Amino acid sequence: MSEFNQPIDSSRFSRESQVATMMRNVLAGPEQYDELEIGLWGCPFDLGLGARNGVRMGPAAIREASRYIRKVNPTTAINPYKLANIADIGDPEMNMMIQSQALEDIERFVAEFTGKGIVPICAGGDHTIPLPILRGMKKGGYIDGGISVLHIDAHADTLDTLGDEKICNATPFRRAVEEGLIDPTKSIQIGLRGTRFAEDDIQGSYDLGYNVITMDEYEEMGRAGVIDRIKRAIGDNPCYITIDVDGLDPICCPGTGAPEPGGIMMRDMQMILRNIRQLDVIGGDVCEVMPHRDPTGMTQLNAANLIFEITCLAAENIARKKGRI
Amino acid sequence: MSEFNQPIDSSRFSRESQVATMMRNVLAGPEQYDELEIGLWGCPFDLGLGARNGVRMGPAAIREASRYIRKVNPTTAINPYKLANIADIGDPEMNMMIQSQALEDIERFVAEFTGKGIVPICAGGDHTIPLPILRGMKKGGYIDGGISVLHIDAHADTLDTLGDEKICNATPFRRAVEEGLIDPTKSIQIGLRGTRFAEDDIQGSYDLGYNVITMDEYEEMGRAGVIDRIKRAIGDNPCYITIDVDGLDPICCPGTGAPEPGGIMMRDMQMILRNIRQLDVIGGDVCEVMPHRDPTGMTQLNAANLIFEITCLAAENIARKKGRI
Amino acid sequence: MSEFNQPIDSSRFSRESQVATMMRNVLAGPEQYDELEIGLWGCPFDLGLGARNGVRMGPAAIREASRYIRKVNPTTAINPYKLANIADIGDPEMNMMIQSQALEDIERFVAEFTGKGIVPICAGGDHTIPLPILRGMKKGGYIDGGISVLHIDAHADTLDTLGDEKICNATPFRRAVEEGLIDPTKSIQIGLRGTRFAEDDIQGSYDLGYNVITMDEYEEMGRAGVIDRIKRAIGDNPCYITIDVDGLDPICCPGTGAPEPGGIMMRDMQMILRNIRQLDVIGGDVCEVMPHRDPTGMTQLNAANLIFEITCLAAENIARKKGRI
Amino acid sequence: MSEFNQPIDSSRFSRESQVATMMRNVLAGPEQYDELEIGLWGCPFDLGLGARNGVRMGPAAIREASRYIRKVNPTTAINPYKLANIADIGDPEMNMMIQSQALEDIERFVAEFTGKGIVPICAGGDHTIPLPILRGMKKGGYIDGGISVLHIDAHADTLDTLGDEKICNATPFRRAVEEGLIDPTKSIQIGLRGTRFAEDDIQGSYDLGYNVITMDEYEEMGRAGVIDRIKRAIGDNPCYITIDVDGLDPICCPGTGAPEPGGIMMRDMQMILRNIRQLDVIGGDVCEVMPHRDPTGMTQLNAANLIFEITCLAAENIARKKGRI
Amino acid sequence: MSEFNQPIDSSRFSRESQVATMMRNVLAGPEQYDELEIGLWGCPFDLGLGARNGVRMGPAAIREASRYIRKVNPTTAINPYKLANIADIGDPEMNMMIQSQALEDIERFVAEFTGKGIVPICAGGDHTIPLPILRGMKKGGYIDGGISVLHIDAHADTLDTLGDEKICNATPFRRAVEEGLIDPTKSIQIGLRGTRFAEDDIQGSYDLGYNVITMDEYEEMGRAGVIDRIKRAIGDNPCYITIDVDGLDPICCPGTGAPEPGGIMMRDMQMILRNIRQLDVIGGDVCEVMPHRDPTGMTQLNAANLIFEITCLAAENIARKKGRI
Amino acid sequence: MSEFNQPIDSSRFSRESQVATMMRNVLAGPEQYDELEIGLWGCPFDLGLGARNGVRMGPAAIREASRYIRKVNPTTAINPYKLANIADIGDPEMNMMIQSQALEDIERFVAEFTGKGIVPICAGGDHTIPLPILRGMKKGGYIDGGISVLHIDAHADTLDTLGDEKICNATPFRRAVEEGLIDPTKSIQIGLRGTRFAEDDIQGSYDLGYNVITMDEYEEMGRAGVIDRIKRAIGDNPCYITIDVDGLDPICCPGTGAPEPGGIMMRDMQMILRNIRQLDVIGGDVCEVMPHRDPTGMTQLNAANLIFEITCLAAENIARKKGRI
Repeated sequence: MSEFNQPIDSSRFSRESQVATMMRNVLAGPEQYDELEIGLWGCPFDLGLGARNGVRMGPAAIREASRYIRKVNPTTAINPYKLANIADIGDPEMNMMIQSQALEDIERFVAEFTGKGIVPICAGGDHTIPLPILRGMKKGGYIDGGISVLHIDAHADTLDTLGDEKICNATPFRRAVEEGLIDPTKSIQIGLRGTRFAEDDIQGSYDLGYNVITMDEYEEMGRAGVIDRIKRAIGDNPCYITIDVDGLDPICCPGTGAPEPGGIMMRDMQMILRNIRQLDVIGGDVCEVMPHRDPTGMTQLNAANLIFEITCLAAENIARKKGRI
Repeated sequence: MSEFNQPIDSSRFSRESQVATMMRNVLAGPEQYDELEIGLWGCPFDLGLGARNGVRMGPAAIREASRYIRKVNPTTAINPYKLANIADIGDPEMNMMIQSQALEDIERFVAEFTGKGIVPICAGGDHTIPLPILRGMKKGGYIDGGISVLHIDAHADTLDTLGDEKICNATPFRRAVEEGLIDPTKSIQIGLRGTRFAEDDIQGSYDLGYNVITMDEYEEMGRAGVIDRIKRAIGDNPCYITIDVDGLDPICCPGTGAPEPGGIMMRDMQMILRNIRQLDVIGGDVCEVMPHRDPTGMTQLNAANLIFEITCLAAENIARKKGRI
Repeated sequence: MSEFNQPIDSSRFSRESQVATMMRNVLAGPEQYDELEIGLWGCPFDLGLGARNGVRMGPAAIREASRYIRKVNPTTAINPYKLANIADIGDPEMNMMIQSQALEDIERFVAEFTGKGIVPICAGGDHTIPLPILRGMKKGGYIDGGISVLHIDAHADTLDTLGDEKICNATPFRRAVEEGLIDPTKSIQIGLRGTRFAEDDIQGSYDLGYNVITMDEYEEMGRAGVIDRIKRAIGDNPCYITIDVDGLDPICCPGTGAPEPGGIMMRDMQMILRNIRQLDVIGGDVCEVMPHRDPTGMTQLNAANLIFEITCLAAENIARKKGRI
Repeated sequence: MSEFNQPIDSSRFSRESQVATMMRNVLAGPEQYDELEIGLWGCPFDLGLGARNGVRMGPAAIREASRYIRKVNPTTAINPYKLANIADIGDPEMNMMIQSQALEDIERFVAEFTGKGIVPICAGGDHTIPLPILRGMKKGGYIDGGISVLHIDAHADTLDTLGDEKICNATPFRRAVEEGLIDPTKSIQIGLRGTRFAEDDIQGSYDLGYNVITMDEYEEMGRAGVIDRIKRAIGDNPCYITIDVDGLDPICCPGTGAPEPGGIMMRDMQMILRNIRQLDVIGGDVCEVMPHRDPTGMTQLNAANLIFEITCLAAENIARKKGRI
Repeated sequence: MSEFNQPIDSSRFSRESQVATMMRNVLAGPEQYDELEIGLWGCPFDLGLGARNGVRMGPAAIREASRYIRKVNPTTAINPYKLANIADIGDPEMNMMIQSQALEDIERFVAEFTGKGIVPICAGGDHTIPLPILRGMKKGGYIDGGISVLHIDAHADTLDTLGDEKICNATPFRRAVEEGLIDPTKSIQIGLRGTRFAEDDIQGSYDLGYNVITMDEYEEMGRAGVIDRIKRAIGDNPCYITIDVDGLDPICCPGTGAPEPGGIMMRDMQMILRNIRQLDVIGGDVCEVMPHRDPTGMTQLNAANLIFEITCLAAENIARKKGRI
Repeated sequence: MSEFNQPIDSSRFSRESQVATMMRNVLAGPEQYDELEIGLWGCPFDLGLGARNGVRMGPAAIREASRYIRKVNPTTAINPYKLANIADIGDPEMNMMIQSQALEDIERFVAEFTGKGIVPICAGGDHTIPLPILRGMKKGGYIDGGISVLHIDAHADTLDTLGDEKICNATPFRRAVEEGLIDPTKSIQIGLRGTRFAEDDIQGSYDLGYNVITMDEYEEMGRAGVIDRIKRAIGDNPCYITIDVDGLDPICCPGTGAPEPGGIMMRDMQMILRNIRQLDVIGGDVCEVMPHRDPTGMTQLNAANLIFEITCLAAENIARKKGRI
């Protein structure tokens, strides 16, 4: 293991000290990509948002909140820093106003480092970004397409357009299927529950072939049932985890653009992620954190904790594949 | 169906656009009452409050938050705009300082539109207002008295006086029984749990004949048990739903004057309302939203969602009665 | 005078009552345009912003804050409601994500009502909007082009592009000159002071021919000198007043995207506007209010007060032209 | 000097320690009135408010903020604790809902301790309270009526009624003249500037005979001119100082119900009070602090500092009268 | 029963009135210790904190929030004021900067009043303070050592040092065992769940002999199982209850320094405390409230409610021991 | 000029992107010290605070706010990046709880990089830190002692002890004189005005020989007079600029521990710094930013702007000394 797996030790040095990198990890540049195995990054993109905005401040807030994450998972005992080389690799150099350019900037950035085999774990940004991320992963040769997504959300995000716009945070999981990036039949959407624009609102997800667990179904199945269903749907297909924080209950994540009451509790979210260690987790993101809507800071804290959970899954997966464990 | 059932389409026009009416509905005046079936209104009254105040800013905050409500209920698939004519009818012209005048102003306003058969659904306001609302409903000939109330609250609100005052937010459900507006034996109070002024604090509710489910009982009965009990208590009597948001857990509604830990979760509240579609719902209110105590905005968002739930119940009830479904 | 000049009387009815229209005025639709003389409207556009966002929540916040504005100007004694027909005319039906469409939507909306001779006074929105507003004014035949702007701002907004984007909140006062909408030699920019991207940052304003008063110059000239300079620069040319609230000191308007310390005090801003009553004021806007950055509400309150000041100027100008005074 | 003049020493004991009394003074009860010379008290009354409410939380917030006041005035070098016996005497036992009873409760409380010759310095409460305070001072024999008031405010508070209510925060300085408590010709109102309900809005003050300095006049006169005018108006008549914090600029006191841009700066307010040491200051209040509107806490901090300034004036006046200095 | 058991009656006098003492009780000094049986006090100590700070503002915030607690427990019907003499006894005179002195100041203060047999119930303060409290209890002869603690927390607080510091909020439950103050085998730690500094992080608790219920175990056991385990672990040993509010879920207590998602719900916490009435409760504290992190005020409200619950337990225990019930 | 003088271009890349370094500069480590000329750093120390705390979150908040600083000074036209090599060098590895160790850690860190001739510009931290900074500068051979300080503050910070503590934020400018680090006769303290612990409170500054401008004197002298006095006091002695943000008016910097009304306005502070370009500025700091007290973010924004002003002065001084200009 190299210097990467050495976040600043919070038992010795003040959590408030040093520039806020993700979970206090080293900030690494392209010249260090060869040694790196997991790249934590930020994507302050919100040009896919038609509603209340502000998620471009999400990555900075999550990095700041992540100062409080320590090293070892209390349930699984995974210490990801003993299993893989991890660093914060910053953000894409991204156009700040023109959506098409920004999407390309993200795609290029992701292609570059995933092309080196580095697992991408991202703090978003609005929920458009899985699209350019998956495109980048394919462009970099990191995936061939047809991967699974484990998608947590209050909304299906499979509309065709919103406000005449084809690329936005209401459409990525349709676009990604159309482009062959995702295999919907091996993917699953969990937590859907918001009031709907129209009677056939989430029908798109079913039509595309996604596995869907609405909140009503979630409640009936129980946490164990949901975990089981996730494993069956995804199997051993490469899996990307994408969490819109509005999938969680607003009492856990009030700081988001379209909160919908009655969602998944943070404890359940943690336990779901701690119980799918068998999956071939090849990346993930946590999106739609809108810090200015949550002066308690809980939303960004929970987002940081979810990034830690995904990091644990990815690190163990790397170690397993590389025969370290 | 007329133009009323056409809230601004949030899938096309920015949620932040236009004046904030309830759930983005048309703002209608008395000249349109003849066509209207459900009147959404605000009652920024807080002259019945002896404690922390600020609920007079409630209706504006709920209207603002309601921009994010869409059209279709995710559990019941009810689209109220296809079932009834709905509009925002504004607020009463109400004295801002003299309680007795303000109560009359509310009563007159309610009598006027309920006299046309319009179902009243109100964003309060302190929890005194069910009294002038019920009075207005009777005055307008909308009810004869003796109706049922489905009352969600952390407190019984059946004291005789508070601080020597007979008309305040601690007494309406005693006054309304005394005036014959409510039949307590067909009404039910749910969620009672606050610390008590005295040993016999909520005894008034039992003495008056209310059905009561304290939080301790709620927990034992479970959600399904509570739903069943509601249906049995109310039966087919005309039912008015009144929700003091402090009935919900403060983690769902911190923005209220007298939050009491350990209450009803928003998910449960939604599911209770979605499972009593048989009731003859003739009106409702959501009270005690104190926006300045909740900078996350969750309280007003939840209140707006509850108004949507009541609207779904009322719209289906209208459609059923008018043979539309 | 018609019913329009009858905002709800705050000395009789609670300021917190009724739907939040601008300064509690009647909400009027196109069918009432013929009688109307001043149209207060909102433009929740922020697709021209490359930085911290959230100004799309500006108009709603300004309307809400404007409940506290009364009828008579304390310095000039102008009561605009006795001088002109005034109403809130809502917002454009505006695409929420595609900039080019939204710009057209604004332009069409403005053309429609200014085509009837109605003076436009707008609560923005990011500071791109003077461009589509001026375009709409020309399209509607309300202006011929070549008008004066009295422009208050910490930044010149005369760059050619920002982040490769030609239409954004850093460029409108270059675009509008290029399109012949503004005569820069009869226009004036006041309050410029932010740190600069480059040495020649605000040079564009000088090159285009604008009159410019930087904050350093402002301080030397004093308020009276500035007022005199404004009058000389603009003379009797039709004048549009555009205020980016970051022109004011951040202690007055912290709720904005790019606050720059050391700006114009609100008292000075008020007194400047109260001392240019001779100008031919034909419209105006107050932009860049970002409510979530100011939990004290002062920014939106000040913006509402500035809209009142512009309304006083416009109403007196109408009355003068129509020979009412 | 007794134990009273011993606030907790902030140079030794944590400012955050102990129950929050005013400026960390001893909490004294009626049994100690004989020894006391200045009584600091709170009046959490807001039943005279027709607009945005919440000032009943004012006294608690001011007491909390006052932990940071030390002992010596930096300009005048007055240490009030060396000049007079000072304590916090709590609040009146006050009805929380019925205005008429609450007014009597305040009057009785004030009569009791001013009857012992104790100078009343109060943290309000809405600006109705000078009326019951002056009534109490007369009832207790502390004044005969016809005193001077030095009144700082953005509004004149001399309307006859507001919303049909004769006793409210818009009328006390008319009522008190009618009742002979105040001699308006020896009193002065400073800082008036809010937009007005009607053209003749503040005319009442002139008609009643008050000396008035509007904000426009204030600016012309300058601070020194204002100080001079105060001294001439009041002379050696007993003087009560009443400060509505909205008299200050909202950038100093955003936390109030009806903030009006362009007011008196806190530095000027301090220096005015530090330059009228000759006046026969017999009491005072600081009203209309609405803490929930100011999360920075500056409003309550400034209110606490103003209470300190009034205390310095009163203490020196006592010492002068009793020949201690 | 004496005058002590008479908190201000919130059904008669405004909750916002009077200086904020704990639950509106009388403020008592040492001269009244002989009559007192329960002393509510504050300990604004945070010199044991290596992370985000601000808990020194905790006691003031809890006292302020406690205005809303009434007299009777809604589940157990305990009215502590009928069972024991209760007062707020203020805070220790405590050095504000030098840890060693402050610890001694706390110890001395506790020794003084517990030496009179008064039950200590404290609003903290960082979670170092159980150490000086237990020391003070022993010094005052109130305990002999070897007592039980019922310890609610997300962290074990049994490290040997943190940042080289032996006395801090990460170590008190090791130090107290070393000093013989606590019998770990009769004590229990509940709610442990935070990410860990190292693999053997909480091993210290097991090694010392504590009973431990991690959050994973808590979930498996259920609330009834946990209650049963508490009773078995503690038995009839004298029991001190210490609650770090981060033991609760951050959705209940966001205002704390090291919130960890997925904790104990407030309802469960209340019901646990209401179901251990048999225990010999001899004191308690509620620590780590950091009010500035929770603008909703829920954290301090919940802390105040927990102090009420502990007070009920202690009062009933006193009454039982003294044969009053 | 090297790569250091290349902060991320905010006219091209979103201000919200990348890890928050000071003014978006490169983050440099010790291996790059040889090329560096100005080191921007953070010092999240607050172990010298006896009052309201939280300034350890200051550096992170200032870095975050500094994203909005551009490259060129609008008054002086200085572009520091064309004059000197500038980078963010992070924070010291600093003990988080033990004051004596933390002071040594700071001293060692400063000695290391100033030993290379790098100008230190620091975002604090409480106002104790000038002491270890000056010690480090001497230890590193960067100064010999006897330097000038330009000290902006509401308090003199020249007490001998506070709460028995000799090293705290009330004493550094006494300690530093005692240690020969500062020549008080060539130093100046500006803005003093807080209420005082005792009559002789700030006498220490005079006794030590400091030049002092109280706020009362400041007002009489005017800005130009103050600038002149600064130049005369300091002359050509090496000058360290230390700004306690409470020296500014609380309306500019509410987010600090001990705000005192009536201070220096941010505009004046900027213009003072822009008019002392002749001084031999060898370093500086901006201290006492307590972000949680200012949800508007203005305090941290102003602190970031002041760091920019000091950077301009230092860069020009370097360029002058090295003959670049």
